[in-house]
Parts: sequence; structure tokens; C-alpha cells
Amino acid sequence: MLTTDQDLERYLDEHRDARLESYKALLRIPSISALPEHAADCRATAEWIAADLRASGVEHVEVAETGGHPVVYGDWLHADGAPTVLVYCHYDVQPVDPLELWESPPFEPVVVGDRILARGSGDDKGQLHLHLRATEALLATRGKLPVNLKFVFEGEEESGSENLDRWLEAERDRLTADFAVISDTGFFEGNVPAITVSLRGMMYAQVDVTGTAVDLHSGGYGGVVQNPANALAQIIASLKGPDGRIRIPGFYDDVVPLSDADRAAFAELPFDEPAYLANLGLPELVGEVGFSTLERRGARPTLDVNGIWGGFQGEGTKTIIPAHAHAKVSCRLVANQDSEKTFEQFRSYVEEIAPPGVVTTVRNLHGGEPSLTPIDHPATQAAARALTATFGREPVYIREGGSIPVCASFERILGLPVVLLGFVPPNQHAHAPNEWMDLNNYELGIRAVVRMWDEVAKLDAAGLARPG
Amino acid sequence: MLTTDQDLERYLDEHRDARLESYKALLRIPSISALPEHAADCRATAEWIAADLRASGVEHVEVAETGGHPVVYGDWLHADGAPTVLVYCHYDVQPVDPLELWESPPFEPVVVGDRILARGSGDDKGQLHLHLRATEALLATRGKLPVNLKFVFEGEEESGSENLDRWLEAERDRLTADFAVISDTGFFEGNVPAITVSLRGMMYAQVDVTGTAVDLHSGGYGGVVQNPANALAQIIASLKGPDGRIRIPGFYDDVVPLSDADRAAFAELPFDEPAYLANLGLPELVGEVGFSTLERRGARPTLDVNGIWGGFQGEGTKTIIPAHAHAKVSCRLVANQDSEKTFEQFRSYVEEIAPPGVVTTVRNLHGGEPSLTPIDHPATQAAARALTATFGREPVYIREGGSIPVCASFERILGLPVVLLGFVPPNQHAHAPNEWMDLNNYELGIRAVVRMWDEVAKLDAAGLARPG
Repeated sequence: MLTTDQDLERYLDEHRDARLESYKALLRIPSISALPEHAADCRATAEWIAADLRASGVEHVEVAETGGHPVVYGDWLHADGAPTVLVYCHYDVQPVDPLELWESPPFEPVVVGDRILARGSGDDKGQLHLHLRATEALLATRGKLPVNLKFVFEGEEESGSENLDRWLEAERDRLTADFAVISDTGFFEGNVPAITVSLRGMMYAQVDVTGTAVDLHSGGYGGVVQNPANALAQIIASLKGPDGRIRIPGFYDDVVPLSDADRAAFAELPFDEPAYLANLGLPELVGEVGFSTLERRGARPTLDVNGIWGGFQGEGTKTIIPAHAHAKVSCRLVANQDSEKTFEQFRSYVEEIAPPGVVTTVRNLHGGEPSLTPIDHPATQAAARALTATFGREPVYIREGGSIPVCASFERILGLPVVLLGFVPPNQHAHAPNEWMDLNNYELGIRAVVRMWDEVAKLDAAGLARPG
Repeated sequence: MLTTDQDLERYLDEHRDARLESYKALLRIPSISALPEHAADCRATAEWIAADLRASGVEHVEVAETGGHPVVYGDWLHADGAPTVLVYCHYDVQPVDPLELWESPPFEPVVVGDRILARGSGDDKGQLHLHLRATEALLATRGKLPVNLKFVFEGEEESGSENLDRWLEAERDRLTADFAVISDTGFFEGNVPAITVSLRGMMYAQVDVTGTAVDLHSGGYGGVVQNPANALAQIIASLKGPDGRIRIPGFYDDVVPLSDADRAAFAELPFDEPAYLANLGLPELVGEVGFSTLERRGARPTLDVNGIWGGFQGEGTKTIIPAHAHAKVSCRLVANQDSEKTFEQFRSYVEEIAPPGVVTTVRNLHGGEPSLTPIDHPATQAAARALTATFGREPVYIREGGSIPVCASFERILGLPVVLLGFVPPNQHAHAPNEWMDLNNYELGIRAVVRMWDEVAKLDAAGLARPG
């Protein structure tokens, strides 16, 4: 194994078992931010992290109120003259349904071979924990950090970061930095080290179609009234063509087209599409015509139903016309689309195509903006050197399909360039049953973070400001 | 009140309270045939009815095994020379979800004004109970019935009558009769006495669309894979055009077109469409273009989603591509469509239009055939005279939108003409929360049944055989 420095490596080696136990303890708290009944668990998680930071020697540690689940803040600012980095992870996790598909309980972490299985093991408690341990090891062995760090650990990422922007606005003075590191992304297919340079934004809406106050007998009323579930299917089917193109007028207006260089970069990525397909177990991959799989994932917007329901869902038959039907529909957005503008286009189109005889309403549940970071930014290059030294190969630069709204918030509210340095393997079942994290990625991730700070310490802080 | 004969009317008057208590007792047993956990309740209901028949003096009473929920059989065959009538009702009821919309618990009947509220109050325990009480009153006051009766009370009507046909085949010799009376229909809009001369059949299928083994992160996979819920919506939307015409090839091939006389009869029905619409609380009625509301309900086939589900249904947002999505889809069929043939057309069309990248399967959950009875049949006319004498106005003849598969079974297996003599008011929330029955219809229904038997006793049994 490549080492950082001998004392630090010895420290990490001696604390391996304790580190795993601490990781498991963090995973055991069911911090599901979307479910009100887990509010106390979210707070307990924040307190757990705050105590851990304090024990390592991080200062000004605070479980900060936001109006929702708290943010954990802490800093260490004694690296005079060195750059200051804002480190972001989130401690909240996705809901766990369908629970019956989990091979082990989601909040009882188990290690199987090189994997640790639990909700949040990768997204994002595992990556947060890796930063905690890198900080602990540095302070324990060197008595100091090579750079100034400000930690911002959020508790509402999986439920829309409702309160974060307001908190960032209010705390702007305390959060000055040279750039931000967000660890909530992952490696490329084949577990290839990667730096994410682009994220998609999101427009998340709910469509509600309402007919009568109660379900109707489908014999007595079939053919007479509009069926809300049929109407909903009609609406959804009208949103996207069989060519994968979204039909909402104006939807693509602001999309930055892919340049020849962009397309060449996508084509060069070491992507084993047959293996990827086999792993998914699907008959074929499907998406917007005219774009490769990686282009569709990284650089093209899309539209997906995240949930749909209405009427009878039990075994057997029930002969009703459902009183109402519902769908959650979201679009992933790319630079330079705007989530609010997209929602308005979506609402206006749905209202236009809504079938007669029922009442259709559209609600905006969440919006987040897309983000692009330059590959040649000095902080991105420092991260690349840290990954190369730790994992023995140069990272690839990828455009990820997911959304991390805080990325755009850091850029917009705090004026910070963002480096997306994440360590989860692809296909780690984020948001799904049996989420797992690769323990080698986790362990090497700690070393990579240490090396990243050592690399950043060599940079001239004045050269790190966000360009233009 | 118009009376049948004085002794009988006095008897009914004296037993009014006991009758209501008995009615409520029958409604209290939650005989939901579709849910396996209610199997014992279905059997208890059958036993309750058998005991009631025996107490009235009906003979050969038996809780007959069918392989599913039992049939209650009983007969009284001492009216020498008079016609023999097979009387059919069903004692099972629909599921009660969504339970939270019931104003009182579905199996705790309450009387509010002229209404009794409970699951099964109209469909069909109330009508079954009305026959029990007519029989009891006749035997108690006259010591005999005017006609020979064979009771067949089924327990699987609401779950597809899976076992009835086999039982009818096996019991064919015991079930010989001159015609059948089925009491599982209702009055016309405005609570106008009616005889149903046509019922729709049904094809009920489930469409399952399967993608990956687990839900996928909609960021990581959005735009790359087919979304099963989007695909399902696409399939459903392709089944019916905005003109309300079903697009399944061959679907209309066997439909008997409406004659000018048929259309004139529909137009003459006393139908208050604005009141009907206002009662439903809908912005407008919607259906196949070129046909009136009553024509669409009574004489045209249709296609409805009875239930749809897939992915996240909770509050807030969950950013997944559902692993699978499902819909229950049924068609109401009219003469001379065939449910099996329709299912094959449906399956073949769904398979043809199923989007790529997912696996789509179609299952046949249930089929039932449409039915038409001649208005001028002597038994139909006897029923008309009984209704006229009891309710003070001539009945209208209607084509109902619902399906009673047993109707076609009686015609096909037993060779019996069928008279549909039912007493529930329209808009009584059959299959929905807050099902109710009009207690005047129930009380007068008992008198009408007595009169019906007195009218049938005057008929020449030889003239009752099923024509053609």
C-alpha cells in the first residue's frame, strides 16, 4: 500500500478495528431525513458527528439550527498562509422501502468480504466518516492540519436541502474559503478513480389527477366518466417521445450542446457497456436517440416517473374507477437549464395536455441547479494528484447523472469553486435496497484525503478564486 | 302502501324491527371474498343464510362445497304444476379500502333516515336478505309458496366466480328450472323502478412491467435505462384514443351495433344528465364520441385502469427509477364480445406496443360474458307487473354497465332465461366507501318479490323455455 507518512499510516493501521466500529455506529442511526418520525434520529446523528469532531480536536464545533434537521459545523484554522477548504458531506439517508428486498436490516451494518452493507454506507455517511478519520489521524500524528478546514455536514440532502441555502446565506461570513470539496460522488465503472466535473440539476414535481370524491363502480360508470388513472397515463406518455426526446415546449432551449471535444472525452472513457448492461440485467439500454449512454447520463436532461399510484393495488380484481391518481415526475437538468423555469414549462405543458373530465394539478416538490467545474482548476488538479498517488492510476474526469444541489449553492451563495472528490464504487445501490460501500475505497479514501490536503497546502491561495 | 294480501302485510308489519336486526346481523359478517383472510367470514355468512332458510321452512338446505367459498342451496318444490324459478344472489362483498373514507365502519351497519349504510347493504346482501324475508313471510302466512323455488346464493361473485361454473355443471340435474331470477341490479336514475335487460361482460387483466431487480438512482441511471413506470404509462395511453375509441385491433369486431330502435329506447329514458353530473361532482362526462351517456354505459364496451402502482408513493421526494410498475386494466364487454378472445387481443396488442428495455407481461385475472334478455319474455313481463303494482309506476327497461358473469353461465350451462330483478337505488356507492341501501326500496322489494311469484304462478310453465 502506498503510504502518506509513516506515523500517520501506523496510526491508521493501529486504529483499523476501532475505525470500523465507529463507522458502524454512525450507520446504525436511522437518519432518514424525508420521514418526520426520524427527526430525532437525524439530530442524534448530528450530535454524534459533533462529538467525534470535538474529540479529534476540531474547533467551534456546533450543531447549528436551520429550521429543519441541523447542520454540523466545525473548523480548524491554524494553517497560517495555507488555503482554506470548506468540506461538505451529508449525514442524512434515503428511505429504505421496499424493506423486504434488503438482505440484512438497513441500519444493522454487516461486513461481507470487502463490502459493508447498510443504508448510508456510501451515500453519504461513509464518505463523511472518511473525512472524520482523515482529520483525526492528521491531528493525532502531526498535531495540526496542512490546510485550514471548515466542515459543513448537512442533514437534509436526501429530502431537498430545504433549509440549507438560507443557512448558507446567514452564515456567509463564517463560511469564507478558497474552494469547497464535496464528497458525495463516486468512482467510474470498474471502480476506476474519478473526479466528477459536472452534475445534473433537478426539477421534481407531483401530478395529481382527481375525479370523483370516491371510487366508482367500473361497470356502472365505465365509458361515462374520465378515468383519472387513464388520464394520468395519457399525460405521462405525452411528456416523452419514443425517441427519448422530452416534448415539453422550450425544454431544451438552454441546454449547452456537446462540443466535439466533449464528445471525444466521453468516447475515451473506459466504459464496458456490455458488462454494465449485464450487471443491470436489462434486455437493452434505452434513452434519447443520437447520444451515447455516457452522454445521456452525464450531459443530457431526462424525465422519469419516480412513483405512480391510484386505485386498487391488491391481489385479484377490484372493479373500480379510481377516484384519483398520482405521479411523482422528475427531470434531471444539465447546464444551463434552470429548475424553476423547467418546472413552469412542465406545469404549463401538463395543464395544456391534461385530458377533460378530471381536475389535474401540478406541484413543485423540489428544484436544484446543474453544475460544471473546470478540469484545469488548481484544486481539481491537486485532487487528481492525490488520487493518482493513492490509487496508482490517474483519475478519469466524469460528468455524473446525479444531482447535488448544494454544489450550485456553494457556487452561487458562497462564490466557491467546487471539487467533487468521492470514493463510492459504481453500482453500490445508492437509494436502493442493499446499499454497500467498498472498504478498500473507504480506507484508501482516507489516505487520498490526507494527500489532497498536503497537495492543497502547496498551492497559492490567491490562485484558487472562482474564475469569472 | 300497496299490499299483497292482508295477512302477509300484517306479518311483514309486525316483523319490521326483527327484520332490520336480521339484515344488520347479516351485514356485520365481513364476507370479503377477494381476501384470503376473510375465508372463514364467507363460510360463516353461508352458514348464517342456510340457518335462516331452514328456519323459514325451505328444504334441502345445504352449504355446498365448490373448492372456494361455498354456495348456499335450498329449495321448496311443492307448488305442483306451477313454474320453477332459480333465485340467485351473492353473499360476498367487495374489499373496503380506502377504509379512511368510510363515515362509519363498513361492517357496523347504521341507519340514517331512509338509508342503511354498510358494505354489502345493497350489493348484494341486502337483495339476498329481501328474498329470505319474502320467502319467510309467504311460508309463515300461507304455509306454502305460489311457485317452486331453488335458491342459489353464491360467495365468489366479487372475486370472479372462479368456482361457480364448475359447480353449476356438476349440479345441472338438481338446478333444472323454467327461468332464473337474479337480484343483483338496481333502479334507474331518480330511483325509478327498472328491469335490466342487458349486462356487460368483462375482461380483467394485469400488466406487469419489470426493469432491474432493485430501484435505481434516477440521477445515475436517468436517461440510460427504460423507466418501467414511464413504459407502463406509454402502454396504457396507447390503449385508448382521445376520442374514447379503444385501439386494440379487432376489439370492436363482434360488437352488436345499436339499431335505430335501440337508440330511440335509450333516448326515451328519463335521464337527468345535469343532475347526474352534478351528483358526481365532475367537470364533464367523457367517453366514446358519437354515443350518448346511457348508450356508452349500456351498449358500448370500454377500457379502464382499475389500479396502477410503481415506485415511491410517500410524502416528499425519492429519486428513483422504479424496478417495476403494474396496472390492473379491465374492459367492459357488450353482446357479442367474448372475454377470452378480447383478452388475447389485449395481450397481443400490449406485447406489440410494449416499449423496449423492460420486460412486459400480461395476465388474465378474470373474464365474464355479456348478456341480453328479451323484454317480451313472459317472466320479464311478470316482473314488470309486480313492480308496477308495488311501486305504482311501470318499470323502465335498461341496459346496465356492470357485469354479472353468472347471468351468462345460467344461460349457457343451465339453459335458463334470466330476469334481472333488482332494487338498489342508483348512486348507492357499490364497491366504494359508504355503500348504502334505500330502506323503502328494500321493504317494497319484499312485496314486489311476493307479487312476482304470484304473477309467475299464473304463467304456463311450458311457455317459459328459453327461446332459440
